[in-house]
Amino acid sequence: MKIAILGGTGSIGQGLAIRWALYHDIIIGSRHCEKAESAASEYCKVLEECDLTGHISGCINPDAVGQADVVVLSVPYEHVLSTIESVRSDLTDQIVISIVVPMKKEGYFRYAQPASGSAAMDINHVLPEGVKLVSAFHSVSAKKLCDMKTELDMDVFICGDDGEANQKVSALVKEIPHLRPMIAGPLEASSMVESLTPLLINLAMFNTLKHLGIKCV
Amino acid sequence: MKIAILGGTGSIGQGLAIRWALYHDIIIGSRHCEKAESAASEYCKVLEECDLTGHISGCINPDAVGQADVVVLSVPYEHVLSTIESVRSDLTDQIVISIVVPMKKEGYFRYAQPASGSAAMDINHVLPEGVKLVSAFHSVSAKKLCDMKTELDMDVFICGDDGEANQKVSALVKEIPHLRPMIAGPLEASSMVESLTPLLINLAMFNTLKHLGIKCV
Repeated sequence: MKIAILGGTGSIGQGLAIRWALYHDIIIGSRHCEKAESAASEYCKVLEECDLTGHISGCINPDAVGQADVVVLSVPYEHVLSTIESVRSDLTDQIVISIVVPMKKEGYFRYAQPASGSAAMDINHVLPEGVKLVSAFHSVSAKKLCDMKTELDMDVFICGDDGEANQKVSALVKEIPHLRPMIAGPLEASSMVESLTPLLINLAMFNTLKHLGIKCV
Repeated sequence: MKIAILGGTGSIGQGLAIRWALYHDIIIGSRHCEKAESAASEYCKVLEECDLTGHISGCINPDAVGQADVVVLSVPYEHVLSTIESVRSDLTDQIVISIVVPMKKEGYFRYAQPASGSAAMDINHVLPEGVKLVSAFHSVSAKKLCDMKTELDMDVFICGDDGEANQKVSALVKEIPHLRPMIAGPLEASSMVESLTPLLINLAMFNTLKHLGIKCV
């Protein structure tokens, strides 16, 4: 499968790139080709250092989306609509995974809920028909995901309206050892999973902990 | 310590009553004295069956609140403001713990965010000055809390503006074996912990699981 990761430079996008590169063709997308190529080459090195190999390339966002089966939106909320606009003509029938979280820092981190209900609802309004949106990975620690030596005993919560797309994303989650996919409801329920990101940052901050994820028990 | 539990009949109120009765005087509050007394007697029996003893009594809400150091609000969101109104003159300097969650069922369970931001913010607006409000226990399984034989390896997220009150609630959490208290931010951050209740119900429902709680990993 070909997976485009937009905003793959840094954070959770990087983690998904190196974890999925063992099984899929990963295409890092960026507004600047050199930045994408440089990130791709850096991630390949991370794999080499772990004696692993994977195929990771980089190119500009529209080219990444045009050849992908799955597109991961791993960009800040403020840039997500303009990013989609820039690749809109290349979106046809892909599965789009949104990791996007609208949040604000006000001493603590607050989930800055959009008028539509969530980042996922905002995104869904502008995606072409035929594209299936799935909201996921909001409670996974980016730092732990980026470290191939870390065992991730965490849950991934998935919201989406298309059962088949949800199942494909669940299968992708299962390819990462010890991550458990859990369906959290339709896309409309996405605010409840998006707000886990600022909650986990607050919990780490106020309890002197780091890189938290969630396990349902 | 004397702990009044309003809405202690059933669900998480019951669980807190029997767990804390080992260390504190528990007063179950209800609008009807007989209902409170009957619940108190039932919970004492639960303890006896486990060869445990505790002091649990029942009375009407104002009497329960008037003699308490800590008041637990474990009533449906729709009734919480009228409940507070009915005990308002008995609230002076207690710590009030809100477990209240505004939610609606629409195929899935949705966090029905009040205009103020959260149930906790609604409640805080009507509490007399001097009373300290703490929002907690929203992600703890009521069923598991009610079963004295179940080991609860879960986290309890605490939001509140008074550091001392937060610490007293943290200490109460620690009295229940294997529950870990975690500060989640000021009272304003309560929407992020309140929305965990519908999220966990949805996760159980969509993944054929039961009585879920959360452990940060």
